[in-house]
Amino acid sequence: MTTPDALQLLIAARQCEMAELEQLERTSQWVDVIAQVIHALQRERGLSNLYLGSGGRRGQTELQRQRQVSDRAIQHLYTHVEALRGQRLRALQGARLYSQAARALQGLGALAALRRRIDQRQWDSAHSTSAYTQLVAVLLDWVFEAADTAADPDITRWLVALFNLMQGKEYLGQERAMGTAMLAAQRLDAALQRRLLHLMDAQQCCFDLVETHAADDLHRCGAWPLNALDSAEHERLRRILCTSTPGQTAPNELGPVWFDVCSRRIDQLRNVEQALCEALQRLCRDKRAQAEAALRQLEALPPSGLDNDPDEDLSCLTSQPPDADWPCTDTVARYPYRSLPGLLHEQQQRLQRLSTELDAVRASLQDRKVIERAKGLLMAHRRLSEEQAHRTLRQLAMNQGKRMVDVAQSILATAAALPDVLDGALLQCTPAPRSHHR
Amino acid sequence: MTTPDALQLLIAARQCEMAELEQLERTSQWVDVIAQVIHALQRERGLSNLYLGSGGRRGQTELQRQRQVSDRAIQHLYTHVEALRGQRLRALQGARLYSQAARALQGLGALAALRRRIDQRQWDSAHSTSAYTQLVAVLLDWVFEAADTAADPDITRWLVALFNLMQGKEYLGQERAMGTAMLAAQRLDAALQRRLLHLMDAQQCCFDLVETHAADDLHRCGAWPLNALDSAEHERLRRILCTSTPGQTAPNELGPVWFDVCSRRIDQLRNVEQALCEALQRLCRDKRAQAEAALRQLEALPPSGLDNDPDEDLSCLTSQPPDADWPCTDTVARYPYRSLPGLLHEQQQRLQRLSTELDAVRASLQDRKVIERAKGLLMAHRRLSEEQAHRTLRQLAMNQGKRMVDVAQSILATAAALPDVLDGALLQCTPAPRSHHR
Repeated sequence: MTTPDALQLLIAARQCEMAELEQLERTSQWVDVIAQVIHALQRERGLSNLYLGSGGRRGQTELQRQRQVSDRAIQHLYTHVEALRGQRLRALQGARLYSQAARALQGLGALAALRRRIDQRQWDSAHSTSAYTQLVAVLLDWVFEAADTAADPDITRWLVALFNLMQGKEYLGQERAMGTAMLAAQRLDAALQRRLLHLMDAQQCCFDLVETHAADDLHRCGAWPLNALDSAEHERLRRILCTSTPGQTAPNELGPVWFDVCSRRIDQLRNVEQALCEALQRLCRDKRAQAEAALRQLEALPPSGLDNDPDEDLSCLTSQPPDADWPCTDTVARYPYRSLPGLLHEQQQRLQRLSTELDAVRASLQDRKVIERAKGLLMAHRRLSEEQAHRTLRQLAMNQGKRMVDVAQSILATAAALPDVLDGALLQCTPAPRSHHR
Repeated sequence: MTTPDALQLLIAARQCEMAELEQLERTSQWVDVIAQVIHALQRERGLSNLYLGSGGRRGQTELQRQRQVSDRAIQHLYTHVEALRGQRLRALQGARLYSQAARALQGLGALAALRRRIDQRQWDSAHSTSAYTQLVAVLLDWVFEAADTAADPDITRWLVALFNLMQGKEYLGQERAMGTAMLAAQRLDAALQRRLLHLMDAQQCCFDLVETHAADDLHRCGAWPLNALDSAEHERLRRILCTSTPGQTAPNELGPVWFDVCSRRIDQLRNVEQALCEALQRLCRDKRAQAEAALRQLEALPPSGLDNDPDEDLSCLTSQPPDADWPCTDTVARYPYRSLPGLLHEQQQRLQRLSTELDAVRASLQDRKVIERAKGLLMAHRRLSEEQAHRTLRQLAMNQGKRMVDVAQSILATAAALPDVLDGALLQCTPAPRSHHR
C-alpha cells in the first residue's frame, strides 16, 4: 500500500494556521482604516449639527474641510475593500465579512445624498445625527464581525478590546453630537437629557470591557484607567446639560465650547485607539513570523530526523501519548528533531488549547450578540427605538434581579417558542412609542 | 471617488458559502470512507480475539480475509487523504482536520506491526483489543472534528447524529471483542463484566443522541427506534456474561456464537450508518446546488435590475431595514430582482440565522469536549484508564446530584486554577489504579 505522509499533513495543518494569521494581519490593517473613517465621520456628524443648529450661520468652512478628511479616509477604506475582495476569504467567516463590507459600502454610498440634505438644510440635526449614527453602526458591526470570526485567541482578545473602545468612543461621539444639537437649538429637552444619560452609561460599560481585555496594553500606552482622560470641564458641562430643567433656555454660545471639550476627549480616545491598532498589527506580525518559523522547521525536517521506525513503533496504539502533562506548551521550536508521535501530540494539544481559549474569548462577544438580537426583536415587534429597547431590557433585568443578557436570552427563547407573545402583554415596562431621536 | 461595488461583495459572500458547501460535500464523502474503515477494523478486532483466545486454533482464515477487507478500505481512505491535502483547507478548521488526519495516518501506519504481534501471538487479546480500540478512537476523533468544524447547521446536525451512531456502534464493537476474549479464555472476570456493563450503558447514551438529532431520518430508513434492532438472543447472552459469578468457567464454545450474534447487530447498525451517510451526501449535494443557483442569480443581476438609485436612496441610513420581521426566510430565490438594500438585508438575516443555528447545534458537541478533556486530565494525573476516568466522573456526578458535564467543567476549572489539586485528595472516589483492560 502507498501511505500518505503524516508529516506532510502536519505541514498542511501549520500552513492553514499561517494562512489564517496572514489573513488576520490584513484584517488588523483594515480595522485600523475603519477606525479612521469612523473618527472622521464622528467629527463630521458633530460639525453638521453645529452648522444645522445655527441655522447655517456657523462652522460651514470647518464642516467642508472635515468632509474632505472623511473622503480621504473613505477612499483609503475602498482600496482595502477591493483588496479584501481579491483575498478570496472562505466559509461562513468569509461570507459574514464580505456581507458586512457590502452593507458598509451601501451606507457610505449614501453619504453624498446625506450631505446634500444637510447643505440645503432639508434635514434637522435629529435626522442628520440619526443617519450618521446608523452609518457608524454599520462600520462598527464590521469590526465586530472581524472580532467574532478571528481564529486566534490572542488576536481575538485584542479585537474585542478594540471593538469596545471604538463602541465606547462612538457613544461619546453621539453625546457630542446630541449635546451640540441641543445647545445650538438653545432648548433643553427631557428626552434628549435621558438619551445623554444613557450614552454616558453605555460608554462606561464599554470602557470597563476594554479595561478587562486590555489592561496591560492600556498601562503600556499610559491610558489606564480610561476615565483618567475625563476632564473636569467635560463633567461640568455634562452636569449643566443633564440637570437643568427641561424647557429651559440653554446658556448662550455653549454649543461650540461643548463641541470642543468633547472633541478633546474623543481625540484622546482616538490616540489610545491608534496605539491599540498599532499594537494589534505588531502582534499579528509577530505571530505570523512565529508560525512561519515553526512551519519552516517542519518543512526542513528530513524524514531521517524522525527518530521512530513507524513500522515497528506501536507506541501510538499502546501507551499514553508523550508529555501528557497539562498544560502543554508549544515545544516544536525547542526540539526541532522530535519523533513524529511527539510532533503529532504537540500539534494536537496546541490546537485544542487554541480552540478552548478561543471559545472563552468569544464568549464575551456572545453576550452582545444575544442582547442585540433581543433588542432587534423588541424594536421590530414593539416599534421601539434602539434606546427604548435598551431601556426595556435594563428595566426588565432590574425588576427580575437578573443580568441583561439573561433577560435577553429568555426573550429570544420565548419568541422562538411563542412568536405572538411579544405582541401581547409580556413586557409591562415597555416605554412610550418610538421618538425621533434614535 | 471610485466606489467598489456592494453587489460584487454580496457575490463574494455567496461564493464563500458555496465553497464551504463544496468542502462539506467532500467531507461527507471521506466520513463515509472512515466509517467503512472503522467497520472493517471492528470486525478484525473481534476476529483477532477469536484467534488469540483459541490459542491460534480458530478463525485464522476468516481473520486473514478480514484483513484484506480492512486494507482495501484503508487504501480507499488514503486516496481521500491525498485529495484532502490537495484541497488546501484553511484556518483553524483546516489545521484541526489535517492534524487529525495525520494522527489517523500514524495509527493506521502501525497496523502492520500490530498484526505481526497477533500472528506471532506475542500479544494477548487484552493488548490487541486496546490497540485496535485506540486506532478506532483516533478515526472517530477525526469524524468529530469534521462535525465540530462544519459551518452549516443542517449538515452539522447530520454529522453529530452520524458521529454518535458511529461512537455507539464502536462501544458495541468493543463489547463484541471483550466478550469474545472472555469466552475464548473460558473465564468470567469481574473487571471485564464491569467493563461490559459500562459499554452497554455508553451505547445507550449515544443512541439516545442519534434519536434526538436524526429522528425523522431514522424513521425514513426504518431504524426507529434503534433499540428495535436488539435481538433477544443478544440480550440473553449479555445476561449470561454479566450475571454469572466471576471466576466461573464460561460455557464452552459460546465464543463464536457471541461473536456472530453481536456481529449481526453491528451489521444492522452499519446499514443504518450507511443510509445516514448517503442521506448526508444527498443533503450536501442539494444544499450546494441551491447555493449555486442563488449565486448564479446574483451574478446574473444587471445593475439596472436593482431598482434603487444609490445616490438618492437614503433608506439604508434612515428607516428600519425592509422585512424586519422575524424570522426572515431566504427570499433571494423568490425575488430575483430585488433592490440592493433588500438583498443586503436578506443576506445579513440569513447569515445571522445560520450562525445562531450553528451555535445551537455545536453546543451539543461542547458537552462531549468538556467530558473528554476532564477524562484526559484524570487519566494523566491519576494514571486511570479511560473507563476508570469515566466511572469517576459518573460517580462524582451521582454523589453531587449534578450532570456529568457540570462535574467535568468544575474539574477543568479547578485544575486551571489549582494545578496541584488533582494530585491531592479532591477525588475521593477514584478507583484502583489502571488495569490492563482499557
